[in-house]
Amino acid sequence: MVGRLVGGLVSIRGRAYDRLMTPGAPSSEPTSISSIDPEDPALTKLFAVLLAGEFAAFYRLIDESSMAPDVPSRIAIARMAASEIAHFDLLAERIGAHGVDPVEAVERYRSVFDEYHRVTTPKTWYEALVKAYVGDGLAADFYNELAHGLPAEARAVVREVMAETANSQFACEQVRAAVQADPSLASPLTLWGRRLLGEAITHAQWVLAAEEEVTDLLFAGATSLQGVANFFDSVANKHAQRMADLGLG
Amino acid sequence: MVGRLVGGLVSIRGRAYDRLMTPGAPSSEPTSISSIDPEDPALTKLFAVLLAGEFAAFYRLIDESSMAPDVPSRIAIARMAASEIAHFDLLAERIGAHGVDPVEAVERYRSVFDEYHRVTTPKTWYEALVKAYVGDGLAADFYNELAHGLPAEARAVVREVMAETANSQFACEQVRAAVQADPSLASPLTLWGRRLLGEAITHAQWVLAAEEEVTDLLFAGATSLQGVANFFDSVANKHAQRMADLGLG
Repeated sequence: MVGRLVGGLVSIRGRAYDRLMTPGAPSSEPTSISSIDPEDPALTKLFAVLLAGEFAAFYRLIDESSMAPDVPSRIAIARMAASEIAHFDLLAERIGAHGVDPVEAVERYRSVFDEYHRVTTPKTWYEALVKAYVGDGLAADFYNELAHGLPAEARAVVREVMAETANSQFACEQVRAAVQADPSLASPLTLWGRRLLGEAITHAQWVLAAEEEVTDLLFAGATSLQGVANFFDSVANKHAQRMADLGLG
Repeated sequence: MVGRLVGGLVSIRGRAYDRLMTPGAPSSEPTSISSIDPEDPALTKLFAVLLAGEFAAFYRLIDESSMAPDVPSRIAIARMAASEIAHFDLLAERIGAHGVDPVEAVERYRSVFDEYHRVTTPKTWYEALVKAYVGDGLAADFYNELAHGLPAEARAVVREVMAETANSQFACEQVRAAVQADPSLASPLTLWGRRLLGEAITHAQWVLAAEEEVTDLLFAGATSLQGVANFFDSVANKHAQRMADLGLG
């Protein structure tokens, strides 16, 4: 039902941007769903989307690490990338058990992820670091927001996938130190962070618009677009916190 | 002691090539060492070399996967690469416990590994697959040959690092099927496999020549170059078997 309304999300995206400008605003309550059948095919579809995202992130992370200035950075990027594959494997096992081939999942959603990465190709190492940290965080936010409404077994999968978040901490520390040393970096990187959020939400909407079942699953408790708006507001609030962690915005 | 003699290995390399031409020749007994002190600093140095190799392999594997024709191949490469990082982390923990920084280890040995990869850059996807399979196998052989002579605790590290070898099986299957479908691929890929072995041995010799302690550790039981020759012969025999698995040579 709500899936049909997703065209209206463009206005919600506007609100998400507004919220981004006022960090510290109280987080809206996450959309709450009473009970979803763990066998619901929409759940498998959701995990298939997440799996395609992990796959795309793995290769882009390595590509974008070509600007890394030193060995510690390259080691840290390699560890982040390896954890994307650990997540991928966990999701592959889950969807495989429900008869969905991980290869088909990657092929089905790769264009939207490739397009996201294409329009957010970093031009400097600091842009790459902000993207790694913010991208990792946005993914974590999406997973966590989603997890609230999912049945226990599915929630466990999501939480396990998200367990390793410390891998992007190095990116946060490097950016923070660089901005402190050279404050002129702050303004362009703040704009860059805002752009990453905007593109992430736009591309998430494309997926939601194409996959009505997934949208209905995620916003089953919402009677109007308000639930959807709350979801994106909450993601935007956490993004604002993350930008503050980086010493930006 | 034996470390000083490593200059003479060029002749052994010739023997390794000869052996390669006669697959199925009985494998020589691995060099056997009675007891090495698990705290021997040369052991830590050996693990530091292996760690630098895993790091280099991770990035090159991803680079070389850019020719991959389909999603299953890219998933398989990503899994192989992720397992290199798992190996890297295990070795990093081991050398870290002995006061050696993994970053310094990578920096110390990166030029020899980079040079190996530079002179063995694949020009086609099948060359990349042969390199992935043969390279993974050669690494496993080196690890296994080494493990024979090591103290129990160090042997456990080596065996654990090598536990995941099934990751390169996809490469073997793809090459085998391609050679069956188009037998004209066999001859150039056979030459390519021989070149990979030759370069691997040459580069291993460079490391051994530079690190006398490691050489002495590995060949402590050998009173002459014979032990060293046996070592490389055994590696060459297993390589020949691996080429046969690929439907080559």
